[in-house]
Amino acid sequence: MAEKITPRAKDYPQWYLDVVQEAGLADNSDVRGCMVIKPTGYALWEKMQRGLDKLFKDTGHVNAYFPLFIPMSYLAKEEEMAEGFAKECAVVTHYRLKAEKGQPLHVDPTAKLEEPLIVRPTSETIIWKTYKNWIQSYRDLPLLINQWANVVRWEMRTRLFLRTAEFLWQEGHTAHATAKEAEEETLRMVRVYQQFAEEFMAMPVLVGPKSDGQKFPGAVYTLCIEALMQDGKALQAGTSHFLGQNFAKAFDVTFTNVDNKIEHAWATSWGVSTRLIGGLIMTHSDDNGLVVPPRLAPTHVVICPLGRNDAERGPSIAAAEKLAKELREIPRDDFYGYEPISVKIDTMFDKQPGYRYAEYELRGVPVRVEIGPKDIEKAACAVARRDVPGKEGKQFGVPLTGAAAHIDALLRDIQKSLFEKAKKHREATTRTANSYDEFKQMIEQPGFVLAHWDGTRATEDKIQEETKATIRCIPFDGDPTPGACMVTGAPSAKRVVFARAY
Amino acid sequence: MAEKITPRAKDYPQWYLDVVQEAGLADNSDVRGCMVIKPTGYALWEKMQRGLDKLFKDTGHVNAYFPLFIPMSYLAKEEEMAEGFAKECAVVTHYRLKAEKGQPLHVDPTAKLEEPLIVRPTSETIIWKTYKNWIQSYRDLPLLINQWANVVRWEMRTRLFLRTAEFLWQEGHTAHATAKEAEEETLRMVRVYQQFAEEFMAMPVLVGPKSDGQKFPGAVYTLCIEALMQDGKALQAGTSHFLGQNFAKAFDVTFTNVDNKIEHAWATSWGVSTRLIGGLIMTHSDDNGLVVPPRLAPTHVVICPLGRNDAERGPSIAAAEKLAKELREIPRDDFYGYEPISVKIDTMFDKQPGYRYAEYELRGVPVRVEIGPKDIEKAACAVARRDVPGKEGKQFGVPLTGAAAHIDALLRDIQKSLFEKAKKHREATTRTANSYDEFKQMIEQPGFVLAHWDGTRATEDKIQEETKATIRCIPFDGDPTPGACMVTGAPSAKRVVFARAY
Repeated sequence: MAEKITPRAKDYPQWYLDVVQEAGLADNSDVRGCMVIKPTGYALWEKMQRGLDKLFKDTGHVNAYFPLFIPMSYLAKEEEMAEGFAKECAVVTHYRLKAEKGQPLHVDPTAKLEEPLIVRPTSETIIWKTYKNWIQSYRDLPLLINQWANVVRWEMRTRLFLRTAEFLWQEGHTAHATAKEAEEETLRMVRVYQQFAEEFMAMPVLVGPKSDGQKFPGAVYTLCIEALMQDGKALQAGTSHFLGQNFAKAFDVTFTNVDNKIEHAWATSWGVSTRLIGGLIMTHSDDNGLVVPPRLAPTHVVICPLGRNDAERGPSIAAAEKLAKELREIPRDDFYGYEPISVKIDTMFDKQPGYRYAEYELRGVPVRVEIGPKDIEKAACAVARRDVPGKEGKQFGVPLTGAAAHIDALLRDIQKSLFEKAKKHREATTRTANSYDEFKQMIEQPGFVLAHWDGTRATEDKIQEETKATIRCIPFDGDPTPGACMVTGAPSAKRVVFARAY
Repeated sequence: MAEKITPRAKDYPQWYLDVVQEAGLADNSDVRGCMVIKPTGYALWEKMQRGLDKLFKDTGHVNAYFPLFIPMSYLAKEEEMAEGFAKECAVVTHYRLKAEKGQPLHVDPTAKLEEPLIVRPTSETIIWKTYKNWIQSYRDLPLLINQWANVVRWEMRTRLFLRTAEFLWQEGHTAHATAKEAEEETLRMVRVYQQFAEEFMAMPVLVGPKSDGQKFPGAVYTLCIEALMQDGKALQAGTSHFLGQNFAKAFDVTFTNVDNKIEHAWATSWGVSTRLIGGLIMTHSDDNGLVVPPRLAPTHVVICPLGRNDAERGPSIAAAEKLAKELREIPRDDFYGYEPISVKIDTMFDKQPGYRYAEYELRGVPVRVEIGPKDIEKAACAVARRDVPGKEGKQFGVPLTGAAAHIDALLRDIQKSLFEKAKKHREATTRTANSYDEFKQMIEQPGFVLAHWDGTRATEDKIQEETKATIRCIPFDGDPTPGACMVTGAPSAKRVVFARAY
């Protein structure tokens, strides 16, 4: 299988595309910038949705659905947002085609909309227009709503999952009676994203505000989770915005507060998208293909019965079926999202065992079990963990009695190991620069660089122009020692995180 | 609460809108024809999605996601489809706005697309364009894929859930090596819809083909499930289409068959939408508000502790919490979608009990438990079933010990009763016409009318024009006796089902 995938050391971007292609995750479509999410990729997204949705509901949120189309005038109401998204809007201008005999199908010029409709790039405007009808009193607050939806941001240079014109995401939109509550919510949700990234995706993240230059158009400030990919580039994986009263003022959403005074409501919004699938791939996968943490794996275990003929295969298949049954009967718990362990029995007997193993390595199934005639003699099986390829990750002679419990424990161990490995990688490639010269050298290496910055947009822009690095976040948990900006020497409250980014 | 809802007998369409509004299911948005699905409505849709998705997966299907936009030329490739959908297409013509200081936000005329993009009204074309890359050999077949998505069909006269410009749905698109397999799939999926309608929605349906005049544009034939609403009008609730080789030919999707010959693939497609929520409302709800079958209820049980003061309320609340815990601990099974029973404890002590009860009746919670000081004395509670309003549906003195098991059994009974009641209603309002005169009288009454028809489009059109009734389906399970068309006297293979419809 290795020949299907370009090694990471040779060409990382090509390796990424090869994994996406060969593991059956997504395809480019003929429609500019839009991808087709293939069944395996979509199964990953469904697992992510389930995990996130439960975390949202556990923190008091409910789902709803708002229109795909946004009148252009709504977007215009919040100036920063209009400027931020104007260049990437898909615009609906007509509502009818004409199909006449003898003529090609064409847009009916008489069916022009009075006001163009934008295909939502994000839904703050249409949602706050709606909230105006829902919010009158402090008793209506907080309003804690999430939406699962598709959005469109016209992109000229796209890359599967990481940057596409249409993508799937969730967007939370909450309304609060006080700035304090809204700020608490902004923080709560970025911590929920951190929890999801670390506990489900096994992807360690830094958490903190973005610099002003990197914040969301329309936000007072943006908090983010920021991950480090294997190639040492950063990936913004999720954002949570404190929107102040900007949207409440744009759409005149007021309420009577406890003191019986009229006030504008306070807002947050927060989102993660199918981009996470790109982050997952670039955190764990290897030159053999996809690696998926068990909590998100559509298939947890593949069992490959072996044998040269029916006489040999019969007992192998019977043992495989028995083990599959035992695995599926392991009590449902939170680790598996209260679903049974997902087991597949492979029966590609017309292929060589090596081909069969490689196929499931490519697709990232966390655990592979092999049961052949010699195993049957010993009432045992071989168990291979996907995160440790080759002999090192393969145990022979695992007794079939107790194998299900053994595999259950192994799956939980893989989840932990993947996180630890990714965290070690991040720690090993995080450096501290004490001068701009040092910074310029370090930023040529993969990884995060911690450095002092004077807090101005001008300095941030200069650094980006000269080094292609951006400020990824001002980490909550970083070293709190103040210092002097590496570029201007002006005071810096604490070091911030720089990197080149996706 | 009754005053919030117009009685059905007075004005059925207004009653429907009142229930949608007062139960918090949906709102009209300011965007023409697009609705906002509110949290309670969306929770219902999520329950439906879960149930359907499991039935799809149990029959071997997987989910995927295809682009929102369809190039106009794709739609043009299948002539019937182009004609069928041309009049209701939202068309994207530009990909950028311009936000310049001092000017209003406007469409950038230089950013015009070379080819207009249609917002998908249904995805056969884009999917079969994609399948061309996925299908080469009979080994690639069958391809059994479903998509959960939003679609847009521009509608001038809309009604919440029943007919909206944007709606949510699922669309299955399968490819097969033989016509036989594709026809079996078409039938399998309409039976899955029947199972979902009857077992989850408690909504009895007729199953059978549509007449040619009512089939899907591009289909060879369409099978449907057809339900009867309380007001005696029919609702098409789901359709499954045998598409023959129409789309494979339009997009040149060929494969090498077992005999090593090149052949076009065979197709089906099938879908249900948020329209089902409208059907659910009009099957079960009453003048007190929404009625939801337990298998789809976002909240199964509401417990109302009662008491005039803290001293009285304390023991009531403690008993409520104990019962809630016991209910949540009932083992997860298929009836509850392997989720815990969903219990809410109501604490609106500042409202009268009657107000509190009415509120949950409005929202359709299947079971309400009342626990007051007198109940506590007897270690008992009162249990009210939503499907039987008033005293008749309320049991007093249910011992708290064992109440959880009692309520579990009651929920299962409500599910069955709702189905039986709806089925009786359909049977009571289904009539058989033996002449066109008789038919014209009967069709003025609510309900289905069974009558002989000669199978021609001309007769079907004439009947529709003269009576506003359409052929809802040619039922698989109907009386198989042949006869003579009530209009032309020409031979009729069997009676078909007529009704006025939504």
